[in-house]
Amino acid sequence: MSDLLTSALNPRSVAIVGASENIHKIGGRPIHYMQRHGYQGTIYPINPAREEVQGYKSYAGVSALPEVPDLALIAVGGDKTVAAVEECAARGVKSAVVIASGFGETGPAGRELQDHMVATARASGMRLYGPNTQGLANFGTGAIAGFSTMFIEVPPMDGPVGIVSQSGGMSAMAYGLLRGRGLGVRHVHATGNEADVTASEMAWAVAHDPDVKLLLLYLENIANPEMLAATAAYARERDLPIVAVKAGRSASGQKAASSHTGALANEDRTVDAFFKHHGIWRVRDPHEQARAAHAYLKGWRPEGRRLVVISNSGASCVMGADAAEDMGLSLAELSPVTQADVASKLPGFATASNPIDVTAALLSNSGLFGDVLPAVAQDPAADLFFLNIPVAGAGYDVDRFARDAAAFEAATAKPVAVAAWQETVAEPFRQHGIATFPNEGEAIAVLAQVAKHTELMRRSRVQWDALPHVQVPAGTQGFLNEVDSLGLLARHGVPTVPMHLCRSADEARTAFDAIGAPAVVKACSAEVPHKSEHGLVALNVQTREQAAELFEQFWTKMDDMGVQRDGVIVAATRKAQHEFMVGARMDPIFGPVVVVGDGGKYVEALKDCAVLLPPFSEADVQAALRTLRIAPLLDGVRGEPPLDVQALSRITVAVGQVIVGASGAIASLDLNPVMVGGTSQGAVVVDALVELSKG
Amino acid sequence: MSDLLTSALNPRSVAIVGASENIHKIGGRPIHYMQRHGYQGTIYPINPAREEVQGYKSYAGVSALPEVPDLALIAVGGDKTVAAVEECAARGVKSAVVIASGFGETGPAGRELQDHMVATARASGMRLYGPNTQGLANFGTGAIAGFSTMFIEVPPMDGPVGIVSQSGGMSAMAYGLLRGRGLGVRHVHATGNEADVTASEMAWAVAHDPDVKLLLLYLENIANPEMLAATAAYARERDLPIVAVKAGRSASGQKAASSHTGALANEDRTVDAFFKHHGIWRVRDPHEQARAAHAYLKGWRPEGRRLVVISNSGASCVMGADAAEDMGLSLAELSPVTQADVASKLPGFATASNPIDVTAALLSNSGLFGDVLPAVAQDPAADLFFLNIPVAGAGYDVDRFARDAAAFEAATAKPVAVAAWQETVAEPFRQHGIATFPNEGEAIAVLAQVAKHTELMRRSRVQWDALPHVQVPAGTQGFLNEVDSLGLLARHGVPTVPMHLCRSADEARTAFDAIGAPAVVKACSAEVPHKSEHGLVALNVQTREQAAELFEQFWTKMDDMGVQRDGVIVAATRKAQHEFMVGARMDPIFGPVVVVGDGGKYVEALKDCAVLLPPFSEADVQAALRTLRIAPLLDGVRGEPPLDVQALSRITVAVGQVIVGASGAIASLDLNPVMVGGTSQGAVVVDALVELSKG
Repeated sequence: MSDLLTSALNPRSVAIVGASENIHKIGGRPIHYMQRHGYQGTIYPINPAREEVQGYKSYAGVSALPEVPDLALIAVGGDKTVAAVEECAARGVKSAVVIASGFGETGPAGRELQDHMVATARASGMRLYGPNTQGLANFGTGAIAGFSTMFIEVPPMDGPVGIVSQSGGMSAMAYGLLRGRGLGVRHVHATGNEADVTASEMAWAVAHDPDVKLLLLYLENIANPEMLAATAAYARERDLPIVAVKAGRSASGQKAASSHTGALANEDRTVDAFFKHHGIWRVRDPHEQARAAHAYLKGWRPEGRRLVVISNSGASCVMGADAAEDMGLSLAELSPVTQADVASKLPGFATASNPIDVTAALLSNSGLFGDVLPAVAQDPAADLFFLNIPVAGAGYDVDRFARDAAAFEAATAKPVAVAAWQETVAEPFRQHGIATFPNEGEAIAVLAQVAKHTELMRRSRVQWDALPHVQVPAGTQGFLNEVDSLGLLARHGVPTVPMHLCRSADEARTAFDAIGAPAVVKACSAEVPHKSEHGLVALNVQTREQAAELFEQFWTKMDDMGVQRDGVIVAATRKAQHEFMVGARMDPIFGPVVVVGDGGKYVEALKDCAVLLPPFSEADVQAALRTLRIAPLLDGVRGEPPLDVQALSRITVAVGQVIVGASGAIASLDLNPVMVGGTSQGAVVVDALVELSKG
Repeated sequence: MSDLLTSALNPRSVAIVGASENIHKIGGRPIHYMQRHGYQGTIYPINPAREEVQGYKSYAGVSALPEVPDLALIAVGGDKTVAAVEECAARGVKSAVVIASGFGETGPAGRELQDHMVATARASGMRLYGPNTQGLANFGTGAIAGFSTMFIEVPPMDGPVGIVSQSGGMSAMAYGLLRGRGLGVRHVHATGNEADVTASEMAWAVAHDPDVKLLLLYLENIANPEMLAATAAYARERDLPIVAVKAGRSASGQKAASSHTGALANEDRTVDAFFKHHGIWRVRDPHEQARAAHAYLKGWRPEGRRLVVISNSGASCVMGADAAEDMGLSLAELSPVTQADVASKLPGFATASNPIDVTAALLSNSGLFGDVLPAVAQDPAADLFFLNIPVAGAGYDVDRFARDAAAFEAATAKPVAVAAWQETVAEPFRQHGIATFPNEGEAIAVLAQVAKHTELMRRSRVQWDALPHVQVPAGTQGFLNEVDSLGLLARHGVPTVPMHLCRSADEARTAFDAIGAPAVVKACSAEVPHKSEHGLVALNVQTREQAAELFEQFWTKMDDMGVQRDGVIVAATRKAQHEFMVGARMDPIFGPVVVVGDGGKYVEALKDCAVLLPPFSEADVQAALRTLRIAPLLDGVRGEPPLDVQALSRITVAVGQVIVGASGAIASLDLNPVMVGGTSQGAVVVDALVELSKG
């Protein structure tokens, strides 16, 4: 395990400040739990009023202990909490877990107390967990510095799952759901207000426990994304899947989250992009975490998304096909050999193509599954198998089905999921270790999740080794004017429309002669970022005199507006097969974020765009474009050629490299429209706005 | 109950052709079931080889029976099936259920046998159920002409639910899931191949059983939508909710469905529109049917969609808010009085606004729910309540929570749903009759479903009393040219762009003078429905001579193309704030179907449109427009005024009335673009194509 938090996750000694004889009190439970779950270290109850607590010698204070404990659990409330933190820090305790609530989550006064505790801890090098937390639990060592009721409700069993959660309730729930499915859990850690140690840091530590094969996170904000990114990178390296809940997806959810832990809401699309970028799978709630756990722990890492559906009910075949399409899986096209083989095993009226309906004939011939399964097991077109048994019972040899399915799974070495809602049918499959679900929706969702998550984890990571050195005008802040904005982009390889910046009507005439008709004439001022709203753009300019007239008109208008006059642009006209937008901004949490999507006037209203986190490749951009609502247009419709997505992707990568290369000097970039032509016709940026960071 | 199918659903006597002593054979089970479940009518086993079957006198054939049975269950296979149908028909049996498969679903030969059975039955006035069916079961009377294994797996109990399903497996599954939840089920009917009696007809009959309070359907196609529409209308009248699965939603699902029952796939958007129009709620599978059943049976008919979330976990409050937004519910804004009242009952650090977090303080004060609930019960801003208890157990007085929740539900008379995944927590709530779910996703989904379904059921139905008499040119079929298409629409009140049809260059000049610049010139030929693809449209025509030149050019081009030359159009130019499309077509199954959506070039590729079934109101169109991806543009963005959706809605209603009024003479109408302006600026159709029906 990582050294980072060893004193907390694997302490040699634990002091419990506020120790209680009553095992149902917060100060009593941890001692009881440690005793019960074989903790081998030393337990130091701190309770000045008692000689002994639960059979252990009790001490008056941390300062009175015979040694400095690795970990102190502070289970006292109110003012005593702060005093206990101070005492622990003074004694040199390495880690302290603060259970009490009433701090940062309640408002400024509580926040101040919390800050004081953190400062105290940091001054002495002590790490602080909480406050407002249910604590930590490591069932590998029995070191349980927490009081969750759930450890009584569902008995612990050490196992390959680690849980890290900001919320104590959600850590308990995930634990309970996993244990209810018979899965072992090693780590159950809640970080509460995260005054010092965050869930990301905790995740890093847990990911370094080599026995952990699945890491579950519950987050309401992402306080230090760099640490979570590093954890994810390490996890991918050792093939450890991370499945995260990030609550507060919706506007009202974010509002509720901020009143729950005072968490700063992260913009949800960016959160999605962050998880995707780092190969973390995002789900809605602990139920979705728990339902897929068995599949991950079986080591499922599918090669693709092609599903085979097998059922004894034609209706289930239909609904299985529907569910597969809903979840982004395709039905595998079985080879003619496989189909003939399957057909030879089935009654005449059954279906041998995928989905495979073995029909109610299963009632009279319990060997049908066993006959059919080997025929499909080796078909290279299949990545995933789904057996749906919506009806069975008296007269069906269900145990034989389960045995046949287990043999099949062993033979194919590919994921096999079963749906059976009748407990009597599900049970034999579970006994044979098969991933069994109460309905086809869940079974197919889990197959799809693991297939897509494996893709994300294995996606080859891009390195941007040679980042451009982006220079921004010294002493400037706020918006650059259009010419400077486009110039900056052009210097970094982004194709921009030919244009001239004119300072006189004569210059406008000369520029028009160079550019040719039809030209575009527009005012240029760093103080007027949205020119068209002020009538400062003219399209389809046909003559040099028109250009000169427009120069005079815009020049005067800028003067009337009292804005800085950088000049008037005469630019070439470029037509697009489709107009896109590319943007980038420095997110206060995640740093550089790039957006690409449908362009034009309604970008903000229609929000048909995809978010990418650097570094990313042109292939990543192309995949992102496929998620847009306008994706059908990429291939060309109504006789149009396919769009030059390669050119658009090149621009998007360049924009990402510019914002990263600017090392924080650029606050945002907005390229709109980006005129994209048909195949090989390229793409060109017609207007752009670069915003420099303040100060 | 409706007279229609009385002989089948409530027979006075049942003959079982192929009766068996073995209660696990298809010919044995129905007799066993009827005996066991108190059937009071006469049972006639037909088995020439036996004197008695299961204690009843056995007969050699239907013709040997002492009376004509109401219902015959034909449980023999192969050729004997057809012979048995013939014998039943000859004897005057009223209804026959044919269990055997191997007919219409297997191909042309089976189809021919099936048609023969139907013809035989119809000739004698006998109704036929199946073939390829699991049969019928009425637990109100014990008349069970079916053999489902599920009636052994989960013991029947009469109750308020009716199930009608094309698939026997799905009827059994829905039955089993409901019974597993402790709900009583009266009707379990499977219609199989529907050679004669369809699920729609069966649904009509079951809807007329006054004891049925919830009707569940499983369909793979909708064979006679008029009957289902009539059933839905009757059901709304008596406040009977219908919840339907229509499988084959996806392309691969539809393919699977057609090989399952040979069902003709219905276009899925139209199916959605049909269900919505008739107030039928559509779900994915029998699990979704079963999970909402208790809520319907409790009589939940919410007044609105405003939800209150209450939990003892802050994280659950956040996820509850997320789930509510996902499902289209809003969080109720509690009144200041309610909030103050709630706050006074909670510890200082708890949240009194919605979602209400009573916090882990619930552990030390089991009265907290009971204190808080009465405070919110009467807030008029709340329509729906959701209690989420993700963590409880030892130390929590869960039974008190359940009592308090039951008292609350009684006091508020509004829907109250509870989520508790721990069986020990859920059980007390269930004991108190509260709708209890294993997770918040399901709980909130059911609340949202019942709220939205109630809206649909209560939506005031539109009547189109005065339909236009639509005359189409006699002796014509196929496409009308543009002028005739627009003319037809204009005659029925649809605003169209001013235009002249010219037959000479001089006429084009005169037309231009009348229309003014800029004009549009386009060729007009019924044989060239897509003019722009042939370069036969010119925009922005500025002079009368340009118009004349274009006339000559298009006139010659049409001659070169060898098409009928109806003339050349000179039309006014109309600009839109946004371009829409309105279309209508005669669906082979559903009849007239209207589509409204985003217009322009990419209508087919982007499919941003909504389907409406006539009759509908302008308000219905406006609601449909809100479901479009471009809906944010309706209110006006970037300083634009809101779009004149009223004008667009008027056009859409007119198009619906035209296709209905044409009584089948019009195959399709396509209005694209429909130029829609800002508020009160109206909408005008710039191009249209009317297709007349063949022969």
